[in-house]
Amino acid sequence: MCKKYVYMFSEGNANMRNLLGGKGANLAEMTNMGLPIPQGFTVSTEACTEYNEGGKKLSDEMMEQIEAAIDKLETLAGKKLGNNSNPLLVSVRSGARASMPGMMDTVLNLGLNDISVEGLAKATKNARFAYDSYRRFIMMFADVVIGVSKSKFERYLDEFKEQKGVKYDTELSAEDLKAVAEKFKAIYFEDQGKEFPQDPKEQLFEAVKAVFGSWDNPRAFVYRRMNDIPYGWGTAVNVQMMVFGNMGDTSGTGVAFTRNAANGDKAMYGEYLINAQGEDVVAGVRTPKPIATLENDMPQVYKEFYEIAHKLEEHYKDMQDMEFTIENGKLYFLQTRNGKRTANAALKIAVDMVSEGLITKEEALLKVEPKQLDQILHPAFDQKVLKATEPIGKGLPASPGAGAGKIYFNAEDVKEAADKGERVVLVRLETSPEDIEGMAAAQGILTVRGGMTSHAAVVARGMGRCCVSGCEEIKMNETEKTFVLGEKMFKEGDYISIDGTTGNVYGEDIPTVAPEISGDFATFMAWADAKRRLKVRTNADTPKDASNAVEFGAEGIGLTRTEHMFFEEKRILKFRIMILSDNVEERVAALEAIRPFQEEDFVGIYEAMGERPVTIRLLDPPLHEFLPNTDEEFEIIAKEMGKSAEELKIKATALHEINPMMGHRGCRLAVTYPEIAIMQATAIINAALKVKKEKGFNIEPEIMIPLIGDAKELKFVKTLVAETADKIIAESGIELKYLVGTMVEIPRACLIADEIAKDAEFFSFGTNDLTQMIYGLSRDDAGKILADYIDKKIYEGDPTAHLDRNGVGELMKMAVAKGRAQRPDIHLGICGEHGGDPASIEFCHMIGLDYVSCSPFRLPIARLAAAQAEIKFPSK
Amino acid sequence: MCKKYVYMFSEGNANMRNLLGGKGANLAEMTNMGLPIPQGFTVSTEACTEYNEGGKKLSDEMMEQIEAAIDKLETLAGKKLGNNSNPLLVSVRSGARASMPGMMDTVLNLGLNDISVEGLAKATKNARFAYDSYRRFIMMFADVVIGVSKSKFERYLDEFKEQKGVKYDTELSAEDLKAVAEKFKAIYFEDQGKEFPQDPKEQLFEAVKAVFGSWDNPRAFVYRRMNDIPYGWGTAVNVQMMVFGNMGDTSGTGVAFTRNAANGDKAMYGEYLINAQGEDVVAGVRTPKPIATLENDMPQVYKEFYEIAHKLEEHYKDMQDMEFTIENGKLYFLQTRNGKRTANAALKIAVDMVSEGLITKEEALLKVEPKQLDQILHPAFDQKVLKATEPIGKGLPASPGAGAGKIYFNAEDVKEAADKGERVVLVRLETSPEDIEGMAAAQGILTVRGGMTSHAAVVARGMGRCCVSGCEEIKMNETEKTFVLGEKMFKEGDYISIDGTTGNVYGEDIPTVAPEISGDFATFMAWADAKRRLKVRTNADTPKDASNAVEFGAEGIGLTRTEHMFFEEKRILKFRIMILSDNVEERVAALEAIRPFQEEDFVGIYEAMGERPVTIRLLDPPLHEFLPNTDEEFEIIAKEMGKSAEELKIKATALHEINPMMGHRGCRLAVTYPEIAIMQATAIINAALKVKKEKGFNIEPEIMIPLIGDAKELKFVKTLVAETADKIIAESGIELKYLVGTMVEIPRACLIADEIAKDAEFFSFGTNDLTQMIYGLSRDDAGKILADYIDKKIYEGDPTAHLDRNGVGELMKMAVAKGRAQRPDIHLGICGEHGGDPASIEFCHMIGLDYVSCSPFRLPIARLAAAQAEIKFPSK
Repeated sequence: MCKKYVYMFSEGNANMRNLLGGKGANLAEMTNMGLPIPQGFTVSTEACTEYNEGGKKLSDEMMEQIEAAIDKLETLAGKKLGNNSNPLLVSVRSGARASMPGMMDTVLNLGLNDISVEGLAKATKNARFAYDSYRRFIMMFADVVIGVSKSKFERYLDEFKEQKGVKYDTELSAEDLKAVAEKFKAIYFEDQGKEFPQDPKEQLFEAVKAVFGSWDNPRAFVYRRMNDIPYGWGTAVNVQMMVFGNMGDTSGTGVAFTRNAANGDKAMYGEYLINAQGEDVVAGVRTPKPIATLENDMPQVYKEFYEIAHKLEEHYKDMQDMEFTIENGKLYFLQTRNGKRTANAALKIAVDMVSEGLITKEEALLKVEPKQLDQILHPAFDQKVLKATEPIGKGLPASPGAGAGKIYFNAEDVKEAADKGERVVLVRLETSPEDIEGMAAAQGILTVRGGMTSHAAVVARGMGRCCVSGCEEIKMNETEKTFVLGEKMFKEGDYISIDGTTGNVYGEDIPTVAPEISGDFATFMAWADAKRRLKVRTNADTPKDASNAVEFGAEGIGLTRTEHMFFEEKRILKFRIMILSDNVEERVAALEAIRPFQEEDFVGIYEAMGERPVTIRLLDPPLHEFLPNTDEEFEIIAKEMGKSAEELKIKATALHEINPMMGHRGCRLAVTYPEIAIMQATAIINAALKVKKEKGFNIEPEIMIPLIGDAKELKFVKTLVAETADKIIAESGIELKYLVGTMVEIPRACLIADEIAKDAEFFSFGTNDLTQMIYGLSRDDAGKILADYIDKKIYEGDPTAHLDRNGVGELMKMAVAKGRAQRPDIHLGICGEHGGDPASIEFCHMIGLDYVSCSPFRLPIARLAAAQAEIKFPSK
Repeated sequence: MCKKYVYMFSEGNANMRNLLGGKGANLAEMTNMGLPIPQGFTVSTEACTEYNEGGKKLSDEMMEQIEAAIDKLETLAGKKLGNNSNPLLVSVRSGARASMPGMMDTVLNLGLNDISVEGLAKATKNARFAYDSYRRFIMMFADVVIGVSKSKFERYLDEFKEQKGVKYDTELSAEDLKAVAEKFKAIYFEDQGKEFPQDPKEQLFEAVKAVFGSWDNPRAFVYRRMNDIPYGWGTAVNVQMMVFGNMGDTSGTGVAFTRNAANGDKAMYGEYLINAQGEDVVAGVRTPKPIATLENDMPQVYKEFYEIAHKLEEHYKDMQDMEFTIENGKLYFLQTRNGKRTANAALKIAVDMVSEGLITKEEALLKVEPKQLDQILHPAFDQKVLKATEPIGKGLPASPGAGAGKIYFNAEDVKEAADKGERVVLVRLETSPEDIEGMAAAQGILTVRGGMTSHAAVVARGMGRCCVSGCEEIKMNETEKTFVLGEKMFKEGDYISIDGTTGNVYGEDIPTVAPEISGDFATFMAWADAKRRLKVRTNADTPKDASNAVEFGAEGIGLTRTEHMFFEEKRILKFRIMILSDNVEERVAALEAIRPFQEEDFVGIYEAMGERPVTIRLLDPPLHEFLPNTDEEFEIIAKEMGKSAEELKIKATALHEINPMMGHRGCRLAVTYPEIAIMQATAIINAALKVKKEKGFNIEPEIMIPLIGDAKELKFVKTLVAETADKIIAESGIELKYLVGTMVEIPRACLIADEIAKDAEFFSFGTNDLTQMIYGLSRDDAGKILADYIDKKIYEGDPTAHLDRNGVGELMKMAVAKGRAQRPDIHLGICGEHGGDPASIEFCHMIGLDYVSCSPFRLPIARLAAAQAEIKFPSK
């Protein structure tokens, strides 16, 4: 029995997404719902994987199954491929498991050849249409499937139009287009050394191979890397009977959403073009009409469309993004999928659908991608400045938010400038998949052409970048890197500001402020908070960070990095003196000068957090990170210390390390210079006593010792801390509890977690360092290496971006088990960057941590991710 | 019920070594054997640990139990402490679980005070002896127990003798010595501000505390670190009735071995002094008489001694090292223990005892410390040169072997010079425990004073350093750092050679050669080889290393580091060009220029190894390790490449890494520059084909890919290697099998060992890197950190010296289990430095590895350690 690679639409359903891809599964589902779908079949994702791993050949079995499916489709359609009376034409489209807009290649009108083009002319009674389709197909096939440069064809077409003295394609006659098609075939022959394939099955096999192969193209890699889509998923190919939106004024094509994808309003929302093919809408070449006007243009079609759209939303229990075509007054649905939306829209839709009784709260929680919430916290323009500023142009509000920065004209320049730390706005005629990395690096995207569903708009919304599209007033000169808008000429490096919520464009740099947060957000986050088991803390080093974090829902601080406090100008001098001291006395004196500052910071943090737990980590980085860089700085310190700069430089050089990541840092500093740990413990306890006394907060500081790899090492540092703390508390006469715990960031700490738990009252996984050591890969040095690994498909992206469940995760599980076995009430958290990453949070939930800690900005993400984890993996 | 801290000798036995220490356990055993032992009691090692961890106080329970034991001892002895007629005097000696010669402090004649000194005079009818003992006791107690500088007393004694116009102590009368004792008490009072303690129990408690405290002294730390003795073991204290070897010519004291500790001959061997206390023999102040002459001096005593010694050897089934004292013609044994011996002696004794039927082969195998075998491979002098050279002096052959180098006069200078790479001989009046580190760093030790059992001799034998002791012809000026021997004045930095086997001293630098290996060695190693399950391979990078290793018993090569081959002068230039190339073509050309050299090396290695397996590792270190250092070198390469030196320097700088240990190295090089792996695979296979063809050896190269952390990464590099190899083999028409495996040295590799085993045919644990990453501690940077950790008693030594069973070992076990589950016949070995460390080898045996690989020099150690592991933990 052969493996089944090909499925008729009637053989599938929505649950077969992994095998048929999203598009194929939904076409099957809609077929089974009895909706008007041009029929076809899907070649499975498994076939794609076998094709790409097996030397890029379609197996005999695949080809046989495709031919059989064509036979069935011909029967269904009552048409035949290559037929000279009423030929079957098909589209060939990719369709991966996850939506990958614009990333894959599409071929339309496949099946046309010198014979069937005549059949098409007869059947449609429109020779001009038939030859127009043929010449388009030849170019598209040559370009997309075979890789012949499109410009060869376009150049000829321009020449031909010039000869004919016409400006637009539409001015060419059927005869003209037939001649163009002939010439196009000749261009193909010239380039390829063989004839344009006349056999429709050969065309089809080549097209299927091209779609499969496009899974391997660099744009696809970039997109997958950005969206965490595994290479191994593959794409399916959908072969679907063509219907034509470009057969005249009773034809058309469009894209629509069942709700507003920008703000979530419950109102049909979309665009269409009369007498056009689907690609025309998406490509943004012509600016389309709003969907509501279809009611006037074609009332019956509109009614049917509206009913089906409603039915689809109810069926899928989600806002739908649909493509449709009207062929001579008959409506066809070409695709439906859950629509992408802004974070605010996602929240509103989720909350509304619960009110409407369409979904449960849990279903609502699963409908919002946690990392989308990022957008909600993005800045908006300062309203005062904004009101005083006249917009100089207006486009479509394609993706909400505010973006201001220097103008650059292509993705490469944007990236280069952004890498230098500049705020940048990408300005472009229209965007294409090649621009994705540049779009990600920009503050915002401004395009001259294209609608709300253009590439720029769709991708920007997905990324949470603000975008204004279709600002047609712009007179662009991409070559010169200038444009004119209003009265002004802008050039590379000039400032511009764009408002993705209104579509306004401003000719200056407008300051931005934190966004207002909607009531839906509060409702939704309350549901998440009620659901989740994991607590959510924040990483915060200053009182200001701490207050912000409380507003974003922080239930405590999981990590205060005390070293950041030392970089402040007044303190760094004293700290450097401490480092460069020759003896304990000098060091103690320098530390005592810093202590009041540390206490002040801790007081501010405790006050901001109230009675929420606060974990403070003792000094962690290698001391040489604090060293002076310039001769001038050395001179200042030398003077202060009464020593020579030369002498200090020698001492500074001696602090150099070969592998600082695995060197003299973390608790090793406390072992070598106990006076540092003592000073810090003093400041932590003094501050807590002060705030407890003055504010009455019942504070219980959590003192975290970093980089522990051995039980005795922890005991040594803990003793230093506890002796210091206990003495101060006893002298104060105030009752104060505190905890001492450790960061688990050395692999060995996981392996001996039981021993460490004897003295540690809590563990906080430091997965940044843990990951680096478990991979033996330093983040500082990984850049060049990873580029090669990604090029060579060993990794699909930075393997450390999400918590590595197989490696790091295994050790974490061991640490959790050993830690709890030794100390059942040990408190377990994570404070690395993974603490704000949804996939990593899910894992932390699964292995039973008590909390995650992340940057204030990512708290809503963490809260939602924690709730989703609980829904997917309910706690016992 | 209180804990029992104090045991009378009659309450113990030889198995209670952990609790009573070696000395205490053996005194108890001998007591129970009915041998003539001065009675006493032992305060346990547990008391020591509690004392040192509990604020350095003897608990009430300890003091009560000591007092009770004193009561019992008084009854046994029929004497009373502090009595004015026949007082009990005791010695107080340390006795740890493992012998720690010279490291701990001893107090003799305790119990003497102003009253009992008169009792002693009466009982011995020798007032001079009594006061001599008293003044000695005051000084020893003040020095050892209280810490008053001995020189204060010695200075006074010298003055006193000058006043009296005498030269030797023996010329002083009883009255004189009484006066000296009085003055000594006054010196004590002056120094301490309180009277010399007259209460014998106070004396005893103070002495016990001093012994316990001495476990904490720096010398003890150094010794323990060198000998891997845990701090937690503690020392016991033995309180034993004094007997006196210094009561006249029918008294004496000595030290003897039941067999010759230097060469293993079955002949009693030792030294004694008439009319002396035990310390006089060990200290080397007087040169003692050989034990055989005792037969003439005291025939009856000699006979009894000989019989008991024989009985002890039979009882302990091992060569005994005994201390004895003769008090007025009566023999007492003060101690027995298994004697330290040279490696050759250990082998001979073990082999002889098996022939004698005293022990089994397995017992014999356990009698030799694997690391002792180190000595056997140490160099001896080139006999031709030696025969042509006249010795300029002669001392005692205290520890065999040959040592030649520059003269230094103290341990510090020796260490400094040795660190610079100089060969050094330490020349000293006599050594003391402070010199241990210097002794370890020297090629040999030459002392002016002291016998075969002096500190220098005992320690040097234990270390395997050659030593000539008691070379009294030397006229030493330690202050000026010169000495005169023969006709010649030697100063610091002059060359000298010493022969520890003959005792000869030579005034020049004599070349050394590899030692001859005795027949006992071959017999013994054959037993080990028959017993062990683990195979033993070697790490060898050159044909010469490989041949040597085969002689030392290598059963294959576990690691050939290909990078070492590149450092050779002719090759490094090409290799540097390769690194600094701009493109693949340049790199390939440079690599092709190196390939013939690599092939040649591999041919040599295969030829040396015959059909033994050879594992060759692909290039491992970061490329920047190979970069030029000087401008001149850059100029040479620039000229060769037709580029500017500036350009190359920029490229070189770009190769710098922040954490090179976790950077661009290992298999990451093969991913980035596949051409390197291809060149190396080509050379490995070409060489194998050549040798197979020419010599007919059935070679099966094992190609090892380093630093694997991911299954796909291994697959990528393995594919490169296999495609290269298969093509060459197919073209050659010769059949050749090869294996591809990986080094397991990244923690993640252990965690996903099952996935990796899909493509790896063998694992070789690289525990050097594995340990560093699991500890998060870079060996290059650990030095300063470890010093503080050892000072603060967090670590007792470098925690990475032996395989860390709790951390690294846990991950290794996991890797073994996962690897075998995936591929049951996977071959498992270790090639880090731990492969030559006995404790680590034992662990490798326990977790079921197939082989260990170590440097040629350590092969006999590994073979014996593997056999011992099998005896202790028999394979199923």
